[in-house]
Amino acid sequence: MKIFRFGEEGSEKPGIIINDVKYDVSSFGQDYDESFLGGDGFERLAAYVEANQSSLPIVADNVRLAPAICRPSKIVCIGLNFIDHAEESGMEPPAEPVVFFKATSSIVGPNDDLVIPKGGDKTDWEVELGVVIGKKASYVSEADALDHVAGYVLHNDYSERAFQLERCGQWVKGKSCDTFAPLGPFVATKDEIEDVDNLGMWLTVNGKKYQDGNSKNLIFKIPYLVHYLSQFMTLLPGDVISTGTPAGVGFGFKPEIYIQPGDVIELGIDGLGSSKQVAKAFGE
Amino acid sequence: MKIFRFGEEGSEKPGIIINDVKYDVSSFGQDYDESFLGGDGFERLAAYVEANQSSLPIVADNVRLAPAICRPSKIVCIGLNFIDHAEESGMEPPAEPVVFFKATSSIVGPNDDLVIPKGGDKTDWEVELGVVIGKKASYVSEADALDHVAGYVLHNDYSERAFQLERCGQWVKGKSCDTFAPLGPFVATKDEIEDVDNLGMWLTVNGKKYQDGNSKNLIFKIPYLVHYLSQFMTLLPGDVISTGTPAGVGFGFKPEIYIQPGDVIELGIDGLGSSKQVAKAFGE
Repeated sequence: MKIFRFGEEGSEKPGIIINDVKYDVSSFGQDYDESFLGGDGFERLAAYVEANQSSLPIVADNVRLAPAICRPSKIVCIGLNFIDHAEESGMEPPAEPVVFFKATSSIVGPNDDLVIPKGGDKTDWEVELGVVIGKKASYVSEADALDHVAGYVLHNDYSERAFQLERCGQWVKGKSCDTFAPLGPFVATKDEIEDVDNLGMWLTVNGKKYQDGNSKNLIFKIPYLVHYLSQFMTLLPGDVISTGTPAGVGFGFKPEIYIQPGDVIELGIDGLGSSKQVAKAFGE
Repeated sequence: MKIFRFGEEGSEKPGIIINDVKYDVSSFGQDYDESFLGGDGFERLAAYVEANQSSLPIVADNVRLAPAICRPSKIVCIGLNFIDHAEESGMEPPAEPVVFFKATSSIVGPNDDLVIPKGGDKTDWEVELGVVIGKKASYVSEADALDHVAGYVLHNDYSERAFQLERCGQWVKGKSCDTFAPLGPFVATKDEIEDVDNLGMWLTVNGKKYQDGNSKNLIFKIPYLVHYLSQFMTLLPGDVISTGTPAGVGFGFKPEIYIQPGDVIELGIDGLGSSKQVAKAFGE
């Protein structure tokens, strides 16, 4: 199943994609929140859609896409999880996963504008594969980990490198600005993705390809990440694990390349669709 | 006003404290969530209580106290914000605030047990003054910052030092275990606290005083913290800023002192009440 959300901020509604057609399922009566994702939401939705598909309204292509799920309790990001990205960052591949959080207030729709924060002049891109938790996970074994995963989502882990690296300690300052977490276009449930460990991942800026990776190169794979994180915190339904970015971020070039107002950033992952953000300066 | 919550996990209810008596206000019909804290909740609740006080049920002293507010979007913590604590940690006082997040899944009631995580043998205490946001804050000036604050709450920022400092990068791993954020006993609105910059703060373990500080020694004061954080992220109603801990944490002793199963941790801040946690091993 592919679920998405649509409509303006504050009045967002749930939808479902069937054969590339977007349907409005707000009549189902439940949004894609912790309760839906952690319960039997997908089963109930499937039954509802089967019974009502002929009467579901179609969502027009010009309607805004919203974040693919409701605001979760947390976005957990994995740093330096591709060897080529660790190299371009001038860091050693880590002995165990590097973990940081992104404020959930940074989540936006997949095609919303990127707002470069005030004082930010090193705003950078990171195409990432997001894992959406479907069942509470605490001290989960690697073997059982995928039972706790609902599906996958495309994420651009925007980063303001000056805030992240030059403003005292901890990366969270450079990861949490509003609009820094476009989530979508949709969440694909596990069964939609044949091999999550072999998905092409790409990102372009103004049409030029900067990132061209594959999830097969993740240092720490998804089952291990779920297991590992669950030793340190309880993952709740809807929580997103953003699994890290391949080489090709702006920070890795010499000289470094950062996003300017007007730039157009497009990205995609095989089976998870694509998204597009236009950068603007704050207040523009 | 002093608001609190009570009842078992999953069926928690809102309450209010008047002249040290705890009243059940679940009949008011709204819990202390983002909508309550960010809207006119306090005004409506005050009017409701004035009209209905004689009929409000009293909450018995043996009822579990729940976290004083519903799960917020984030807990933002400030590191090394007391000179004496920076010194005992062997770190320089920071040039600007050190910021990290704690998973909101770590929030528990003020007197709930502390669960020492599996594999954790360096679990430590930190009495902290929590600031509860009452109005969305983005790019707020220091002068206007307190307009965005609803009130204050006692917080024990439990930390597993091995996870925080010895497991690759970023502190979040050692700050986010379940039960690591007892919040309460209550939130006091701003008007309840005469001088938030002069509150005694203390913490004992098994009756022995380890922390004995005062909020007057915060390096970065509350208005500056709200202003500062709002440059990097949007603070939402209910978000908690935990402003840092004074000297006297277990990590600062030579040899270091950490929490053992059976230990009793008590802490308090002038005007914000006290809380008490009993430590137990995971699965005990």
